[in-house]
Amino acid sequence: PERSKAKIVECARKIKKLGQDDPRRVNHSVKVGLAITLVSLFYYFEPLYDGFGDSAMWAVMTVVVVFEFSVGATLGRGLNRGLATFLAGALGFGAHRLATLSGEKGEPMLLGLFVFLLATTVTFVRFFPRMKARYDYGLLIFILTFCLISVSGYRDDEMLDMAHKRVSTILIGSLTAVFVCICICPVWAGDDLHNLAATNIEKLGIFLEHFGVEFFRKPGEGESINKASLQGYKSVLNSKNMEESLVNFARWEPGHGQFKFRHPWKHYLKFGSLTRQCAYRVEALNGYLNSDIKTPPEIQGMIQDSCTKMSSELGKALKELALAIKRMTPPSSASSHLVKSKNAAKNLKFLLYSDLCSGINLLEVVPAVTVTSLLFEVISCTEKIAEAI
Amino acid sequence: PERSKAKIVECARKIKKLGQDDPRRVNHSVKVGLAITLVSLFYYFEPLYDGFGDSAMWAVMTVVVVFEFSVGATLGRGLNRGLATFLAGALGFGAHRLATLSGEKGEPMLLGLFVFLLATTVTFVRFFPRMKARYDYGLLIFILTFCLISVSGYRDDEMLDMAHKRVSTILIGSLTAVFVCICICPVWAGDDLHNLAATNIEKLGIFLEHFGVEFFRKPGEGESINKASLQGYKSVLNSKNMEESLVNFARWEPGHGQFKFRHPWKHYLKFGSLTRQCAYRVEALNGYLNSDIKTPPEIQGMIQDSCTKMSSELGKALKELALAIKRMTPPSSASSHLVKSKNAAKNLKFLLYSDLCSGINLLEVVPAVTVTSLLFEVISCTEKIAEAI
Repeated sequence: PERSKAKIVECARKIKKLGQDDPRRVNHSVKVGLAITLVSLFYYFEPLYDGFGDSAMWAVMTVVVVFEFSVGATLGRGLNRGLATFLAGALGFGAHRLATLSGEKGEPMLLGLFVFLLATTVTFVRFFPRMKARYDYGLLIFILTFCLISVSGYRDDEMLDMAHKRVSTILIGSLTAVFVCICICPVWAGDDLHNLAATNIEKLGIFLEHFGVEFFRKPGEGESINKASLQGYKSVLNSKNMEESLVNFARWEPGHGQFKFRHPWKHYLKFGSLTRQCAYRVEALNGYLNSDIKTPPEIQGMIQDSCTKMSSELGKALKELALAIKRMTPPSSASSHLVKSKNAAKNLKFLLYSDLCSGINLLEVVPAVTVTSLLFEVISCTEKIAEAI
Repeated sequence: PERSKAKIVECARKIKKLGQDDPRRVNHSVKVGLAITLVSLFYYFEPLYDGFGDSAMWAVMTVVVVFEFSVGATLGRGLNRGLATFLAGALGFGAHRLATLSGEKGEPMLLGLFVFLLATTVTFVRFFPRMKARYDYGLLIFILTFCLISVSGYRDDEMLDMAHKRVSTILIGSLTAVFVCICICPVWAGDDLHNLAATNIEKLGIFLEHFGVEFFRKPGEGESINKASLQGYKSVLNSKNMEESLVNFARWEPGHGQFKFRHPWKHYLKFGSLTRQCAYRVEALNGYLNSDIKTPPEIQGMIQDSCTKMSSELGKALKELALAIKRMTPPSSASSHLVKSKNAAKNLKFLLYSDLCSGINLLEVVPAVTVTSLLFEVISCTEKIAEAI
């Protein structure tokens, strides 16, 4: 009993954490519950039930399947479902008629052929990356509806009646889902994408701001910054897929807040890839934080100031850029930080160039030189990011 | 007309390329067509249609929705769908009875409450990363079936009849999908995962094998290796999501080929993250291939041999490891290549340590030193990969 009690406590803690990490999750769950209950009761009450018959269950199904976390995803699914049902219904109706004309023996063969050809073709089309990104669900529903309609074996008038009911119920379901999704605490994929872009840059900034000090800090000397906060940038490395799906969702969304309809969402992909370029350099830098080789004091004395300055100014510039993105204002002081960082780099290059070293073994300066060189690279990455804003 | 002709040719070329890149795509499309046609005709022919009535359409729906590219994904979806339908059906039946007992007025309220609570809870559960990875589809179907059953308003005996039909048709659909998926040119997610792990390492190996020569090559001198073939490693950087989904699929698969059921698929995730660690270093190295700063000849003469040797032996070791993974044999000569590479590194370190430089300005040696240092890092990454096999 002790053990099971501990497990329950552990589980409750996890649930609480999941909700606290992103309270929108709780909202979303309640919204889904609400939408489904609305449509279900719709379905339950007699007058409507008489009118739509069994077709009414399609409304419930549509809500369950279409309701997604963000507005863009819900809209995309709803539109996909509606359009695909309509098109496939019309095509299925045509196929069914054509098959009926060919006599009793030819009918099943012709129908089988139609279904086979359409299912094969559309399944192949789903492999196209562009189609997969935006219309995957629609293509699935297209196959589904076509098969159901063409093979159903209803008479023509029955079928028209059914098609009418089906389309209306799916419309009711989609509209309910979209309505609840937009009207109650909407979650915009566009906002999420925008924030993701900003926080990713901010995370890099946080790392770089403290990197210089951390790198030259002697063991046991001074307060170490919380290491965990420096490692935040790791999530940037694998952000590509999330960005891509958010872009696909955001493109379905109407204008909202600061974003107009047809906001250049694709731009965020270019932007994200520049950010990741920078993150890969930062990851390489991170490998030198706990280097075994100690930089000789004379070299350290020579480069420490410039290096620390370069890194911290880079960090400030990146944080400034992140803030500018968040607020959608032109970055105020980012370029001045960048200039300071570049001046420090110039300074450092001059020192390295003029101060002909003697009596130093190269092995000992390896980490310091590498870090310097990687920081040069980060500067050029940051410049590209600043230009892309 | 000229333009539209060009567009059609372009489109045909794309289709051909998509098919040639992975011929299994064509197979898959045909398989889906076949399975759907089978079930559709099943549905079309009278005797069965009489027996199952409208429920037969659930068989078609199940095939369309369950059939996925790999065996693991199909099995996972099929099991999820079957189990969720069964459980939710039983629970929905119970809820419906309970609501009936509470009188005519209380029934819709109680039903609404049940639906709301269940939909909200299950939607929240879908946010748990573990649940999302393996049971997302099942949870969706759970909500769907529960709502349909509990709200349907059928009488008890009707409902039992319907439940029986529904479960049988879903079973027929799932079995058809799984049967066609496994029996005709099966695509195993496990195989794909295994090959992905091997090719990712191989791509790093190819880069490193040629990196040393490329780096020290003077402009215009000698044949440049096809640059595109060196850039293959870029895909490794973003392989995480693909690996994770393949692992989730592979866990549903029964034993096949060289893999037993419950093959330690999760191990591939650890392995993949080590490979990516290595890839980040390689990405940093790649930045120095077109460096502007020329290494002074005396330094280049000192380090070129060791550096080139280190890099090419690393490349060979990685390629050997990739081959060993592919064949599932212990790597034969990988460790000897690794030792050679480490010897070259030791040699280089000795040179750097003993040859006290004089009259050299540090700026000019920055790229060379950085590359050396990154290669040291790659060595330790490679060692970790070799250990993890």
